[in-house]
Amino acid sequence: MDIPATYKAVVFDRPGEISTKVVELETPKPGPGEVLVRLTKSGVCASDLEIMIDAWPIPCVPAGQVGGHEGVGTVVILGPGTEGTVKIGARVGVKRVANVCGSCGPCLDGRDGLCPNQNISGWYHPGTFQQYVVAQASYLTPIPEGLSPELAAPMLCAGVTTYAALRKANTRGGQWIVVSGAGGGLGHIAVQLAKNAFALRVIGIDVGDKESFAKECGAEKFIDLTKLKGKPASEEVYRITGGEGAHAVVICTGNNTAYAQGPDMLRFGGTMVCVGLPGGPRKNIEGLSPGKLIDKELSVVGSLLGSKRDAVECLDFAARGAVKIHVEVRGMNDMTKTFEQLKAGHLSGRVVLDLA
Amino acid sequence: MDIPATYKAVVFDRPGEISTKVVELETPKPGPGEVLVRLTKSGVCASDLEIMIDAWPIPCVPAGQVGGHEGVGTVVILGPGTEGTVKIGARVGVKRVANVCGSCGPCLDGRDGLCPNQNISGWYHPGTFQQYVVAQASYLTPIPEGLSPELAAPMLCAGVTTYAALRKANTRGGQWIVVSGAGGGLGHIAVQLAKNAFALRVIGIDVGDKESFAKECGAEKFIDLTKLKGKPASEEVYRITGGEGAHAVVICTGNNTAYAQGPDMLRFGGTMVCVGLPGGPRKNIEGLSPGKLIDKELSVVGSLLGSKRDAVECLDFAARGAVKIHVEVRGMNDMTKTFEQLKAGHLSGRVVLDLA
Amino acid sequence: MDIPATYKAVVFDRPGEISTKVVELETPKPGPGEVLVRLTKSGVCASDLEIMIDAWPIPCVPAGQVGGHEGVGTVVILGPGTEGTVKIGARVGVKRVANVCGSCGPCLDGRDGLCPNQNISGWYHPGTFQQYVVAQASYLTPIPEGLSPELAAPMLCAGVTTYAALRKANTRGGQWIVVSGAGGGLGHIAVQLAKNAFALRVIGIDVGDKESFAKECGAEKFIDLTKLKGKPASEEVYRITGGEGAHAVVICTGNNTAYAQGPDMLRFGGTMVCVGLPGGPRKNIEGLSPGKLIDKELSVVGSLLGSKRDAVECLDFAARGAVKIHVEVRGMNDMTKTFEQLKAGHLSGRVVLDLA
Amino acid sequence: MDIPATYKAVVFDRPGEISTKVVELETPKPGPGEVLVRLTKSGVCASDLEIMIDAWPIPCVPAGQVGGHEGVGTVVILGPGTEGTVKIGARVGVKRVANVCGSCGPCLDGRDGLCPNQNISGWYHPGTFQQYVVAQASYLTPIPEGLSPELAAPMLCAGVTTYAALRKANTRGGQWIVVSGAGGGLGHIAVQLAKNAFALRVIGIDVGDKESFAKECGAEKFIDLTKLKGKPASEEVYRITGGEGAHAVVICTGNNTAYAQGPDMLRFGGTMVCVGLPGGPRKNIEGLSPGKLIDKELSVVGSLLGSKRDAVECLDFAARGAVKIHVEVRGMNDMTKTFEQLKAGHLSGRVVLDLA
Repeated sequence: MDIPATYKAVVFDRPGEISTKVVELETPKPGPGEVLVRLTKSGVCASDLEIMIDAWPIPCVPAGQVGGHEGVGTVVILGPGTEGTVKIGARVGVKRVANVCGSCGPCLDGRDGLCPNQNISGWYHPGTFQQYVVAQASYLTPIPEGLSPELAAPMLCAGVTTYAALRKANTRGGQWIVVSGAGGGLGHIAVQLAKNAFALRVIGIDVGDKESFAKECGAEKFIDLTKLKGKPASEEVYRITGGEGAHAVVICTGNNTAYAQGPDMLRFGGTMVCVGLPGGPRKNIEGLSPGKLIDKELSVVGSLLGSKRDAVECLDFAARGAVKIHVEVRGMNDMTKTFEQLKAGHLSGRVVLDLA
Repeated sequence: MDIPATYKAVVFDRPGEISTKVVELETPKPGPGEVLVRLTKSGVCASDLEIMIDAWPIPCVPAGQVGGHEGVGTVVILGPGTEGTVKIGARVGVKRVANVCGSCGPCLDGRDGLCPNQNISGWYHPGTFQQYVVAQASYLTPIPEGLSPELAAPMLCAGVTTYAALRKANTRGGQWIVVSGAGGGLGHIAVQLAKNAFALRVIGIDVGDKESFAKECGAEKFIDLTKLKGKPASEEVYRITGGEGAHAVVICTGNNTAYAQGPDMLRFGGTMVCVGLPGGPRKNIEGLSPGKLIDKELSVVGSLLGSKRDAVECLDFAARGAVKIHVEVRGMNDMTKTFEQLKAGHLSGRVVLDLA
Repeated sequence: MDIPATYKAVVFDRPGEISTKVVELETPKPGPGEVLVRLTKSGVCASDLEIMIDAWPIPCVPAGQVGGHEGVGTVVILGPGTEGTVKIGARVGVKRVANVCGSCGPCLDGRDGLCPNQNISGWYHPGTFQQYVVAQASYLTPIPEGLSPELAAPMLCAGVTTYAALRKANTRGGQWIVVSGAGGGLGHIAVQLAKNAFALRVIGIDVGDKESFAKECGAEKFIDLTKLKGKPASEEVYRITGGEGAHAVVICTGNNTAYAQGPDMLRFGGTMVCVGLPGGPRKNIEGLSPGKLIDKELSVVGSLLGSKRDAVECLDFAARGAVKIHVEVRGMNDMTKTFEQLKAGHLSGRVVLDLA
Repeated sequence: MDIPATYKAVVFDRPGEISTKVVELETPKPGPGEVLVRLTKSGVCASDLEIMIDAWPIPCVPAGQVGGHEGVGTVVILGPGTEGTVKIGARVGVKRVANVCGSCGPCLDGRDGLCPNQNISGWYHPGTFQQYVVAQASYLTPIPEGLSPELAAPMLCAGVTTYAALRKANTRGGQWIVVSGAGGGLGHIAVQLAKNAFALRVIGIDVGDKESFAKECGAEKFIDLTKLKGKPASEEVYRITGGEGAHAVVICTGNNTAYAQGPDMLRFGGTMVCVGLPGGPRKNIEGLSPGKLIDKELSVVGSLLGSKRDAVECLDFAARGAVKIHVEVRGMNDMTKTFEQLKAGHLSGRVVLDLA
């Protein structure tokens, strides 16, 4: 394949503000254990925005940072020692966790998303808003046949994250799960995976205009937050579940009130999974006393990022039509406008960046 | 066997205060599914005191309530329909959960300690501070050969509770567990069971004069709360565990500070089990934000009471010497004084009431 | 309710042969812990036939044995001590395991189907081919609202058995399971539950004229045994699964060849679940050497009967339409003919006996 | 460090026979992802002998093959791209599985011992009977502080294998496990790990002169095969376990009779783990019919090799004294004689080759 000497990338040129710039970069060479991937699509995620505008209590990225962490493309150059690991032409994905050590406690436990030696795409490590990226050969995610790059891209982040969270809910098929934020970016995928990958019965919670969307995604029941009139949502959950409560709740929104209400929706032995990260200073989960956990032997579990196995498995579900995402493809020059719209809440569905 | 028409019992004669009285009661007849048990020993538990003095946010027991929930004795009369379930002369225990329905969700899930249809010994249901008690035949705990009534009694409550809690810690042999309150009534049993039943490495936390006791019980390391000089205990835990943190923490004390500090002691994917119930109004677990749980994918789990299977298993450990409890046997007329000493913190070890 | 002094029952009048007789029996009274159930329907199972004709290496039933083990009806009399357990008028099922002790190892482990103290409906214990049956109150299976007695009846045996077997397959959603005997009485329910309750991808194996039936039940792929031309079925399984093999195989037929071929269909770490009991003298699983198990770290697991919890869960799936069974309702006087047709293999679908 | 241009190695000079030769080899350079390890000790395993004499149904190794698969040493040269993975001077082990791909199904499942892309030390891949070996940086096993190379070496093979097998037994602390071949090379380690890492109660089975050894290792009970007088060993197991049978059996010998008897020793739901590989043509597990598995819902599971995590965990137990192995250190020139003695059964304990 003909690899150009330079290529185009979208960088954060003024970190702290919403601003991107298309620049020309020199094509890098893969080192030992690495490959060069030609990217054709990259998902655009709310966390790209948050990293760009320095919204999180982590160091702000430097000017010139290539953003993005949901890249899909094909392998074009094999670095030294990667011959047996991946093939030229293989369709692959590059996700938020760019690489892992394979040797630490989390890696040995199959929780490589927590590897302390990992690099994070788009945060002090080149991201996927570019036409070429160097990636760790052994940590690429294979893209299954029949799955379009447009759908694969958002599955690499939102899909993996929700799938990993649902696995921590510790449920059996036929049980009730509440998805809080069911119409949101994570939530609507959680609803689909809960139903199709875990055979669960889903109660979606969100504001009313998300009801039909949540139900199309597979929610059997829906609780409209705007119609509760001061009644706690848990009352509705109990009514729907025949007075017993849900087996699990997964909080897909960064809303502290959602966290405060979650445990009350659970039946004995139930599990609340925490996924959505509330912005601003960290607050206690309101009302979560030892007594509340002890009374019904509840579990509260945090879920950060999925493993490579999670990625492989949830892409397989997507390839078979078990997850659908509304996607809009945009060009590299539209990124600043896209982030402005994302911040203003004017985007519906997911934007995918065309890098071809 | 010769069953007397009346027998002696210790009742709470003035609930709300520390006061007990030995009374003569008519020997009851077991109904269908029930048996009559002649008790020889009953453990005396801090929760008996709390129920007597109405310290908990549950209805105060009526005057005349027979207290106690750690009774050991033998079956003397079989009620209708119990022939195949238990035999005359069988050594049995009666625990806090006096009976269960066997049909509800928790019962079908093997979590019968949470059965909503249960009766609670010594709280609106006759307890074990008496020479005879009627009990559900199918829910008696068999006392293994070679285990003395004096040791079996406290195992039926403190033993089962800690064993059930340790099972929720989700550990493998060789991992590190922190027992907070390692020298206390629950804690010193947790230390022994963690080491001998779960093959864990134990870090005990308590005040310094409990150090030698905790180490005799099996704690490999000990953190003296009085010597931390403002340093968080988690720092010590990290030092001991080679910088990685513990795999699990079990809070055996009702101390809100212990709960606040627990999650910080954990490594990635670690579990804090909540057992000790803080007194007073319920408070949030301080510092337990969604972010703290998500960062390291921690779990926080409540544990209330064990199941019958937990009881059978932990009594088996005790019968083989894996748990030792310091016991002092007292008579029925000494109960008021015993509760006064218990309240004042003047008792060391566990009091067992002699009913023979 | 008006309970008649006598009622009609179908008994095996000449055990060892295919012969049944409708007789009039005196209505029994429920003892302690028992209730009287008025049955309206009972499923007819192949094992009723096998028990009647003494096909198994267990003692032959006595003449006059009331057969049947899939009864559905309502509670009409409460025996002593059952008031809190079940209500008059409750819709309930009586299954093969008629009652359990609740105290043995299997019962405490939630494997009550293996309770050594159980009685077996229709084998030395009155079965469900009768209008009234006495049953253990705490072991009745509640019939969910909206599930017809005709469908509930076969679910109580074939449904529970396959559901319990699938749980032992130790799979995750999205994995491949082979159902051997996919068009049979157990197999076609296994296909439906595998897909709808476990979110698995199903490969059905059977003779070709079962293909469309198996696919309607949810099999994604089908292997026609009559078209293999000497090629092992495992070759087809490998082709379908991209060269990796299935994650699990469940043998729903009593065919020794199916057992011999099962392990070869599995990928590393896969599980074969044994359900169908081959007739005749017991034979080794052909080819199952230690080396074959060790090479790929395979598991082979036996599954006998489900627990009460399995029954509750699989009836819930049926009530929501996740399992469909073709049922033909017949009268009490048609039972001999029905068993003759069953033996001759002339029945398709499941016969349900009308007792109303 | 000063690396010599050549070094000494023990090779199989006439594969098919017992014959070894000490040769001088050129010191290799580590490639990308690899390191050079200076070995000081290597365990000598029965499977080295079997590979040398071509006893297994796998291709015979070529003349000049460096044998061995239990090497312990220190990292002396870092190949390209390994800087972040391991440090110069780190104490490391090289085990039978020399390297893995990290990307296949088994690797993603944490079962890297089954990776189909692995190389096997001492079989068509340079082994550990040499002073220097090139190894995959990310797959080295760290040797914990305080564990001598002499003990670490055999733990890397026999230790990992038995530890991985015991994990498949699916037991809880306090349960009964039978170790068949309790006095053998694998069995005596299994006894120690079962007791100390899994808190199990061990019944050892072997010939009588192994009794005291098995009991020193931690067997609570011992069954002497030479004293059964035709009675099946399962009868003894039932007697010891109060008539209920063992929860698990692990077969650490390659004896077909041991396999035939194992399932009969189990209680309901019990598990037989297959580890020892019988020599000669593969034979069915005698008596293992579907019915035998179904009756008591038994599991039979194969265990081949452990994962890197298994290695890390079992070395940790050894470092803390939970496993003791009798070791005899020999020189490189003694290897032919050592293998002759091994074949003749004249070695007791484990030989470790001194490479320093």
